[in-house]
Amino acid sequence: MERILVKASKHSYPIFIGENIRFRLNKLIEKKYSSILIVSDEKVAELYVNDIVTNFPDEKVFQSIIPVGEQSKRLEYYYQLQTDAIQFGLDRESLIIALGGGVVGDLAGFAAATYMRGIDYIQMPTTILAHDSSVGGKVAINHELGKNLIGSFYPPAAVVYDTQSLETLSEKDIRSGYAELVKEALIADEVFFNKLLNVNLINVKNNQLEEHLSAGIKIKSSVVEIDEQESGVRKNLNLGHTLGHALEAELGYGEITHGEAVAIGLLFSLHVSESTFSSKLPYDSTFQWLKKNNYPLNILQLNEDSIIKKMKTDKKTLNNTIQMVLLKEIGKPIVQEINDYDMKIYLKSFTKKLEIASLVE
Amino acid sequence: MERILVKASKHSYPIFIGENIRFRLNKLIEKKYSSILIVSDEKVAELYVNDIVTNFPDEKVFQSIIPVGEQSKRLEYYYQLQTDAIQFGLDRESLIIALGGGVVGDLAGFAAATYMRGIDYIQMPTTILAHDSSVGGKVAINHELGKNLIGSFYPPAAVVYDTQSLETLSEKDIRSGYAELVKEALIADEVFFNKLLNVNLINVKNNQLEEHLSAGIKIKSSVVEIDEQESGVRKNLNLGHTLGHALEAELGYGEITHGEAVAIGLLFSLHVSESTFSSKLPYDSTFQWLKKNNYPLNILQLNEDSIIKKMKTDKKTLNNTIQMVLLKEIGKPIVQEINDYDMKIYLKSFTKKLEIASLVE
Ligand SMILES: NC(=O)c1ccc[n+]([C@@H]2O[C@H](COP(=O)([O-])OP(=O)(O)OC[C@H]3O[C@@H](n4cnc5c(N)ncnc54)[C@H](O)[C@@H]3O)[C@@H](O)[C@H]2O)c1
Ligand SMILES: NC(=O)c1ccc[n+]([C@@H]2O[C@H](COP(=O)([O-])OP(=O)(O)OC[C@H]3O[C@@H](n4cnc5c(N)ncnc54)[C@H](O)[C@@H]3O)[C@@H](O)[C@H]2O)c1
Ligand SMILES: [Zn+2]
Ligand SMILES: [Zn+2]
Repeated sequence: MERILVKASKHSYPIFIGENIRFRLNKLIEKKYSSILIVSDEKVAELYVNDIVTNFPDEKVFQSIIPVGEQSKRLEYYYQLQTDAIQFGLDRESLIIALGGGVVGDLAGFAAATYMRGIDYIQMPTTILAHDSSVGGKVAINHELGKNLIGSFYPPAAVVYDTQSLETLSEKDIRSGYAELVKEALIADEVFFNKLLNVNLINVKNNQLEEHLSAGIKIKSSVVEIDEQESGVRKNLNLGHTLGHALEAELGYGEITHGEAVAIGLLFSLHVSESTFSSKLPYDSTFQWLKKNNYPLNILQLNEDSIIKKMKTDKKTLNNTIQMVLLKEIGKPIVQEINDYDMKIYLKSFTKKLEIASLVE
Repeated sequence: MERILVKASKHSYPIFIGENIRFRLNKLIEKKYSSILIVSDEKVAELYVNDIVTNFPDEKVFQSIIPVGEQSKRLEYYYQLQTDAIQFGLDRESLIIALGGGVVGDLAGFAAATYMRGIDYIQMPTTILAHDSSVGGKVAINHELGKNLIGSFYPPAAVVYDTQSLETLSEKDIRSGYAELVKEALIADEVFFNKLLNVNLINVKNNQLEEHLSAGIKIKSSVVEIDEQESGVRKNLNLGHTLGHALEAELGYGEITHGEAVAIGLLFSLHVSESTFSSKLPYDSTFQWLKKNNYPLNILQLNEDSIIKKMKTDKKTLNNTIQMVLLKEIGKPIVQEINDYDMKIYLKSFTKKLEIASLVE
């Protein structure tokens, strides 16, 4: 088991990574809580919720199970969790456990952040993607007009990451999660990036996966330690997300996974970075890797104006101008203002490039 | 103009108190914001919103006006504010101004705390009661099952309190606001308390009022500086609120003002304190003062079991046991656990006492 400590302004918290550590959860929790609410989605609950419950034979343990998918990260389920918490009698000394992917983590984390003005919660990520979402204390729900627009910075009490639980993930979710690993590699570590481009997602080995997750988490946690509230360098973690978030909203939440949308967004960032800095970046190798690993790259019928409008609800937008993370080179991200006119041209040339590539196939 | 600085963990913020300072708001704001959203209720907006708007001839200024009353402090209007903020194009460098009483302050403050994970907001209290709610960074909305159950600790960027705007307050709202002043006096300052008991609310003079507000704010801010997140002494500020909040919920939000409910709660605390500590506290003089000033004290048909159930959704509740603030003497508050059986007896003897007093009339 690995243990990484993350410093946050409110308090520091440990991240535990290891196989089968979900069965030792009670040993890893330091505090005694008055009651515990486990939040999970229907799929994850069926697979793992009992393993968590058995950790606490002597406590009051409750469950709130939400439907699977991004659609659950919204006001209605947020309020449902609050109602459950009240009806189960959770008080300020209670704990919420977020058992699941980024959807459960973001939703349950935001519920914990605002229930009685904030109670403790523990992230138990069960997807690869959630190595990212569970670290750093960003919690949120979606507004119908944009992703993650309602939320808080609210660090968890701990992150407990059982890598064994990742074995039941679908191919699509492995793909989705690796997009964020590629993102972290691109903004911070060329060696790691090259390693990732050699991975074949349908047969990643367990020890390989653990190594990648640990590397990704270390990049993520070192960035959020420096800039918890995203006033500076933390913005770089949004590489690929300007287009990514807009695509999710445009296609309808849940139509494309978060990571798949981010993957396209990463490619787009490389495209824009190459034109902006007239430099050679790994657009082609990234494209090849995404294609080989079956990322959906067919977004040809994009309406650019609508996408640009969606991009502007991004939280980095300032004075109605899109701020996009670009790369000068691998490991050298930079936030750049891009006006609507240029953005439209970039979007057109990007879709054109994808179209040509698909014809060559 | 008076200026009081409050230290908070995130940042310190100034409270400005003075006559007509709403016309100088732009001078008091240090930062340049990308846009401004003024949140107010229909009554306050009609009276004062233009005075605020004229401060910013060169900025993008928007308005969200909510219906008057406690009923607006709920999820629906919270989401409406988020929608407005997005549609008006507010970004992370935007400002929300909460112009109004505690309802507007709590609701707009919580919206600011969670819009894009938190943007700046300024409290501009326009009620006497809001001297209390605008200081200390507690923001919240009500859940249908209990008061203020969803919220954050999120300090404002500043509090700008124009005492001249209090001249349009109704008698009911003056009464409501003074209840919180009496509360502050009871937990901290006997001299102030005795001064208040000499006030006749239908003809408080302006300079008197300013003196009381300043004293109240100083008590409040010194407590929240010591214990921002209410893990200790800040709990004392809930004197009168255990029954107060339960009464508001029981009668239906808006049926009785917050301060009126707190006034009854204060009397109840004095009643319970006298029995618990067998000490002489100013129950009688407080009762007389409340009666003289037309506080509604007729709550004879209380259903004790239902009230106790409501008391338990209070945020101080631990392990399903009510925690109530009592007074050993004036200026010596203490948090005491009270079991359901005792609480029922206290409620019965309290209503009996009120009933007898009303017969004597
Ligand atoms: N807070 C942050 O900093 C942050 C960072 C990145 C992403 N996110 C958010 O994370 C969300 C995406 O997270 P996600 O991809 O984990 O989505 P998810 O939570 O919807 O999980 C994806 C799918 O995998 C299933 N699943 C989860 N664990 C499983 C397991 N062990 N075995 C089998 N199936 C399993 C789920 O039921 C779901 O169908 C998005 O909403 C995104 O905005 C947040
Ligand atoms: N956050 C905290 O720490 C805290 C502390 C105490 C109370 N509160 C909350 O504050 C709320 C009560 O505040 P409130 O009593 O100010 O209620 P309120 O905001 O509803 O105002 C009371 C009434 O006065 C009117 N009004 C406001 N300013 C006026 C003016 N200048 N002239 C004429 N009319 C005016 C309003 O339209 C409303 O009808 C409750 O929801 C309570 O829970 C919060
Ligand atoms: Zn992401
Ligand atoms: Zn109050």
